[in-house]
Amino acid sequence: MCEANAYIYENGKENLYLESVDIMRPEEGKIYLRNLFGEQKIFDGEIKEISLLHHKIVLTKR
Amino acid sequence: MCEANAYIYENGKENLYLESVDIMRPEEGKIYLRNLFGEQKIFDGEIKEISLLHHKIVLTKR
Repeated sequence: MCEANAYIYENGKENLYLESVDIMRPEEGKIYLRNLFGEQKIFDGEIKEISLLHHKIVLTKR
Repeated sequence: MCEANAYIYENGKENLYLESVDIMRPEEGKIYLRNLFGEQKIFDGEIKEISLLHHKIVLTKR
């Protein structure tokens, strides 16, 4: 499977925010995420970096 | 492998922009992409949607 985990980067640390993300979409200055299990979250911030080979999405507050 | 192809969405169509993307990072209002083969591109636009299960990144001009 090719999903990735989303982390929030804050104070030099990455904290898990949502596992197994499938869909990610910027929406009105926020980031909409949906995972394999249908769980949805909206993060008030922005994308810092995505590494697909590492299955990793890093988000950060503005 | 879990890379994705990046497409530009324009006029209702999706045109291939970069294959096998690994890294993607917003930078100064643009999108930096690097693929498995070390090829790098900077797209002057924004992310429309990512679907990891479909191995698909869709970018769009502002």
